[in-house]
Amino acid sequence: MSEPYAAVDVIRTKRDGARLSDEQIDWVVDAYTRGTVADEQMSALAMAILLNGMDQAEIARWTRAMIGTGTVMDFSTLSRPTADKHSTGGVGDKITLPLAPLVAACGAAVPQLSGRGLGHTGGTLDKLESIPGWQASLTGNQMMSQLDDVGAVICAAGDDLAPADRKLYALRDVTGTVESIPLIASSIMSKKIAEGTSALVLDVKVGSGAFMKDVDTARRLAQTMVALGADAGVQTVALLTDMSTPLGLTAGNALEVAESVEVLAGGGPPDVVDLTLALAREMLVAAGVTDVDPADRLADGSAMDVWRAMIAAQGGDPDAALPVARESETVLAEADGVLVALDALAVGVAAWRLGAGRGRKEDPVSAGAGVVMHAKPGALVRAGQPLLTLHTDDPTRFAGAIDALVAATVIAPGDSRPPDVPLVLDRVVGHDD
Amino acid sequence: MSEPYAAVDVIRTKRDGARLSDEQIDWVVDAYTRGTVADEQMSALAMAILLNGMDQAEIARWTRAMIGTGTVMDFSTLSRPTADKHSTGGVGDKITLPLAPLVAACGAAVPQLSGRGLGHTGGTLDKLESIPGWQASLTGNQMMSQLDDVGAVICAAGDDLAPADRKLYALRDVTGTVESIPLIASSIMSKKIAEGTSALVLDVKVGSGAFMKDVDTARRLAQTMVALGADAGVQTVALLTDMSTPLGLTAGNALEVAESVEVLAGGGPPDVVDLTLALAREMLVAAGVTDVDPADRLADGSAMDVWRAMIAAQGGDPDAALPVARESETVLAEADGVLVALDALAVGVAAWRLGAGRGRKEDPVSAGAGVVMHAKPGALVRAGQPLLTLHTDDPTRFAGAIDALVAATVIAPGDSRPPDVPLVLDRVVGHDD
Repeated sequence: MSEPYAAVDVIRTKRDGARLSDEQIDWVVDAYTRGTVADEQMSALAMAILLNGMDQAEIARWTRAMIGTGTVMDFSTLSRPTADKHSTGGVGDKITLPLAPLVAACGAAVPQLSGRGLGHTGGTLDKLESIPGWQASLTGNQMMSQLDDVGAVICAAGDDLAPADRKLYALRDVTGTVESIPLIASSIMSKKIAEGTSALVLDVKVGSGAFMKDVDTARRLAQTMVALGADAGVQTVALLTDMSTPLGLTAGNALEVAESVEVLAGGGPPDVVDLTLALAREMLVAAGVTDVDPADRLADGSAMDVWRAMIAAQGGDPDAALPVARESETVLAEADGVLVALDALAVGVAAWRLGAGRGRKEDPVSAGAGVVMHAKPGALVRAGQPLLTLHTDDPTRFAGAIDALVAATVIAPGDSRPPDVPLVLDRVVGHDD
Repeated sequence: MSEPYAAVDVIRTKRDGARLSDEQIDWVVDAYTRGTVADEQMSALAMAILLNGMDQAEIARWTRAMIGTGTVMDFSTLSRPTADKHSTGGVGDKITLPLAPLVAACGAAVPQLSGRGLGHTGGTLDKLESIPGWQASLTGNQMMSQLDDVGAVICAAGDDLAPADRKLYALRDVTGTVESIPLIASSIMSKKIAEGTSALVLDVKVGSGAFMKDVDTARRLAQTMVALGADAGVQTVALLTDMSTPLGLTAGNALEVAESVEVLAGGGPPDVVDLTLALAREMLVAAGVTDVDPADRLADGSAMDVWRAMIAAQGGDPDAALPVARESETVLAEADGVLVALDALAVGVAAWRLGAGRGRKEDPVSAGAGVVMHAKPGALVRAGQPLLTLHTDDPTRFAGAIDALVAATVIAPGDSRPPDVPLVLDRVVGHDD
């Protein structure tokens, strides 16, 4: 078959700072997925995009082209509106676990296609797989009937959802072309739009433990993604939320499941509860459900009921004991004072080194490994008091984890607490909202 | 073996606009040649270099690293100083053919490692291969003894000369990363420095038929290459020369050999004679030979004697008839007036389409195909007078060649000649000259 373009001409267009045409974008994304455009050509194009940018119309077309390489799901036959959430990834970010059943308990359907973790932020599927019996893989029909019966599904994305993105993401990872807002935004949104949700809330994390370190870059990413959602007819809103310190008191797979169940039971750390409720409200408004307060559904146990049904529907036993790591070691406060900083990245790296995360995508993860925090920034502490407990199956990993935590905690003398950092830093909506 | 760097970190360094360290450069060039750094990683790095640049010290290190992936030739045992010339490529540029024997006749040794043509500029080896019996491949020992006996060698570069460049050039060609001064300069100079010449003259072409379209870019390339030569201890000088119109009256393999022999016989077109003498004088001065005027050696037949010996030493018959194409067609002037333009690129593309060049490096070339020009810019012409004769073995190729020549010739009414464009536009020497 003869090709309408030569890859080198498409690369030169972007290299020389010009816009890619709709036809160039459609062709290069499809031809790369087919293997006609070689990896070394796409990586040169990705670098040119990273350095010279794409405008919003180019990003929208690129996103549509990626969606077009696979299938698009359709939930329009469900009796309820659908709402989904995507987080750009943070340390201790288990919000999906209480959020999906909570929103379902309020009357929307939540089709949450999730991924596994790579690097210092955990993956939602890794967390749920610490529940004995729970299965991440569902067929399309299983997913649809679970949404009908239970209202919430958290499962693995199929290979047929934006396959261009899967291939491109792996390439970007090894060619230094990850950190591009057009490529990040189109990667996230191509999967979320292909997933077929009618409403989408984006949790864009900002801070040391997040991919985006500063709020301006995070806001630009959020604006780009919200516009892509609007372009595709998905009601989209983004919250920028703080990731300078971990969410909640746990980082690690089974540890985070247990904390999520506490939240569903009406307890749990206030930051996790607050962010779960804030995101639930956004999802419900975006889905057009305005007559229910999610705080009530948390309080009355109905969110917990959906959780139990959701876990059981995928083979899991919601009453089974969660795995516990074989060994633990506790880090103590070295002085009296106020804990003014507990660095998210350091805790994430420590949990990863303890076995909670993977270095390569083929690696297994440890269900029980991770970090439990006994104090969060703002707390008064005394010398010798436990600050962190590290859990692992392999005690040779303690040293590396503790290395990561050096300088992660800062204790200031005295008892004056620093001003609170708000959890939600900004809210980004489309121009028409 | 463990590697001291990750490719992605080297890519990120240049992507983010920083200098590459000497150690990063040495490693990435070597690791790419070994296959440890993948093509898709090197192409991303090449794009980052193209867009963010390299400073002169980085380019010098990159050049040295490329040389270090192969062997370096040594001509220090020869009784004569060595001098070489490199042209960045132009249409009708057969200068190497009369130049190498002329400079040898003046007392320097000329070890000219040449290439084959790709695209609209011909390759020196393709031209010489139109001489019956002539062989491009020599061993190092054969080359050395021919330099001793004859004084001039034009032959193919061995695979062991800067192999990193061979691999990188093929990659750049398909990834839109050719047009980078640091990468062009290091590519040319790595081979020329590895070739072991003590003096080097660069003919940097400027104009429609050249790689560099404007004189400022050409000057920057020339300055970069002259500095690389100085850095490596090679006496280097560059001439910027006009390539808005072809050199001489022929473009095509055997046609250019015949024209070169005319020059060696004391005739030939004035522009070819002038540029041959200008480059010969530069090479001789750079090699320290200052007591001979090359015009005398052209006039007294000694350059022709070296030519005949050089061709014969490589199996060629200097008296054999050259191949002639089977078919020809003549393009006539459409009006009376002055020929004010004869576009080099158009003539080059026409010759290529007639069979003189190749589209892919595996393709054969036709020895007899090409274009003969009957008038050059500045000439008075009359309607119906022959302007160009096209030669090919395959008459289906005439139409495409004539297409390329539409608008290539411009005839202005009247008889006032445009001002002459000087052939040599500028001369670039090192800071210490």
